[in-house]
Amino acid sequence: MTQTPPRPAAGSPAPRPVPTSTDVARLAGVSRATVSYVLNNTSAVRISEPTRRRVREAAEELGYVPHAAARSLRAGRTRIVLLPTAHVPVGPLYGHFLNELQWALRRLDYTVVQYASMGLDGDEAARAWAELRPVAVVSFGAVELTPQGVDVLKRSGAQAVITLGPQPVEGAHSLPVDQRRVGRCAGVHLVERGYRRIGVVLPEEPGPELFSGPRLEGVRHAVAGTGADVVPLPLARTEEAAGALAARWPGLGLDAVFAYDDEYAVLLLRALLDAGASVPGDTAVMGAGDLLLGRLMRPRLSTVRIDMEAGQHLAELVDRVVADPDRTPENRDLMAARAIHREST
Amino acid sequence: MTQTPPRPAAGSPAPRPVPTSTDVARLAGVSRATVSYVLNNTSAVRISEPTRRRVREAAEELGYVPHAAARSLRAGRTRIVLLPTAHVPVGPLYGHFLNELQWALRRLDYTVVQYASMGLDGDEAARAWAELRPVAVVSFGAVELTPQGVDVLKRSGAQAVITLGPQPVEGAHSLPVDQRRVGRCAGVHLVERGYRRIGVVLPEEPGPELFSGPRLEGVRHAVAGTGADVVPLPLARTEEAAGALAARWPGLGLDAVFAYDDEYAVLLLRALLDAGASVPGDTAVMGAGDLLLGRLMRPRLSTVRIDMEAGQHLAELVDRVVADPDRTPENRDLMAARAIHREST
Repeated sequence: MTQTPPRPAAGSPAPRPVPTSTDVARLAGVSRATVSYVLNNTSAVRISEPTRRRVREAAEELGYVPHAAARSLRAGRTRIVLLPTAHVPVGPLYGHFLNELQWALRRLDYTVVQYASMGLDGDEAARAWAELRPVAVVSFGAVELTPQGVDVLKRSGAQAVITLGPQPVEGAHSLPVDQRRVGRCAGVHLVERGYRRIGVVLPEEPGPELFSGPRLEGVRHAVAGTGADVVPLPLARTEEAAGALAARWPGLGLDAVFAYDDEYAVLLLRALLDAGASVPGDTAVMGAGDLLLGRLMRPRLSTVRIDMEAGQHLAELVDRVVADPDRTPENRDLMAARAIHREST
Repeated sequence: MTQTPPRPAAGSPAPRPVPTSTDVARLAGVSRATVSYVLNNTSAVRISEPTRRRVREAAEELGYVPHAAARSLRAGRTRIVLLPTAHVPVGPLYGHFLNELQWALRRLDYTVVQYASMGLDGDEAARAWAELRPVAVVSFGAVELTPQGVDVLKRSGAQAVITLGPQPVEGAHSLPVDQRRVGRCAGVHLVERGYRRIGVVLPEEPGPELFSGPRLEGVRHAVAGTGADVVPLPLARTEEAAGALAARWPGLGLDAVFAYDDEYAVLLLRALLDAGASVPGDTAVMGAGDLLLGRLMRPRLSTVRIDMEAGQHLAELVDRVVADPDRTPENRDLMAARAIHREST
């Protein structure tokens, strides 16, 4: 592609002149190459401290910052790590993990950008991400990446495409984060405590299917062969919907319910209590996520605690794969899950 | 800056060849200019539909996607809108607003990236953002942007720098989102209901100061001249801390408490109930945010409901400012707040 000088788009006013490295070089009385070496912290070239200082002061005076895009065109790749974000708010658990990961990547000198990917299918998303030419993409299941999508990303320069999810994706480094284990923990806990007719609350809202489906599957797996039944229960995240479910509860003949997460569990727990049910006497209620609100309910909510490995480890893996894309994929599970028995089961 | 051909960084393997527009042009049998016109949806040039299709098919076959960076260097600016993100998880309210905003910006053909900005001061953050050469930055108070920071962004090509917060920032389009109004609603509600010794719970955790300080100030403002007292109460977000505060509650002589948000309110409400207090008989408890968990408590939590204007409006404002950076700043408040009386006050 031919480089033409920057010019304003038709119909919009001329942008103010943007200071360039040439301006910095002129003001500091050095070559443009020296400016580039100093501002990109190139250690390969020996430049005296007074010169470095003069360049930095000139850059500051002019308000010059290097252009990540220009740098990436020169170097053939960026230091951008792209994290696709979901269209559902992440819980405190993922929020904490994401923060750790972003900090750790920044310490490794990456630029981390989150890209809202809601409403895109896997291939659309991959093309949209590829336009930013990220050197790495770490996908948490906000979209279902396909092998074709991975290929688009790699062809556009991504060295590392890492997916966290139950299914490996061809061409990507797939780290298993198996939500089925959350459901399995709940199922084992409930069966061990003697429950035999187990409802599983699934959010009616779009978004969490990638999590809720595997969690249901995990419960089914845990109870297989025990003689217990599993009954899926779609539920909207409203008091009205929970009240309606509680009203028809006696007819369902369930002695326990595992909800997708603590929020849905507490919503249903409250509705059951308000309808006069005894918990866990008539029905046991269990959630997932070990959120504060579950601990604040009476009876205290039993839950599945989910722990994510420190974000630092994943950041280091990203860095290793960027440096050596053909290395043998690692596939440690980043997630641990265990049942926590409180008062509601 | 001189353009040298892409080359691998020292010490890392050669990246696989990235398909270029030249490859697409060759395969489709058209000029590179035609490829560029078709893939950038340029309407100024008339190109037949069969040719457009041939170009698109060739691009797909080769896995070619345009390079946002190269395009931005050509056009002099990007279509990137940068949203700095905080280091605290945003509540469902902001989460919803952010989603709406991102959708709306995407429909206007912007590329939206979120940039984790925790731990950066205002000027560091502005320089880091500027490296991505965003055409617009919409800052929600994750960092305190300074006039110098705004200048760095504008000099690097940002047409629109929009801040949402209580204080206007020189050089930016500042939209007031005044958290003091949240505290004012709570203060007026409590004073009207006859409470005279009002505690205000402030999170001990770092992060929400930009919100909690103004909310406290708002309560103070609302009770000024009424004879009521305001007592700040720092509280960590743990059951232990809430239990300790509840244990010394009788000695504080408070007849009401407004907590920073519904989570802290419910945390303290539970501890007060567990310690045998009657709510609202002995002490009224009020939160902010109208979260589900407050509605699930008994007594139901009174709260301040906060409504953000639809993200679509802000997206359109971004687009107008990008097109005409010198327009007179608008300064509508995007936030509405009102007290909701339930059972705890």
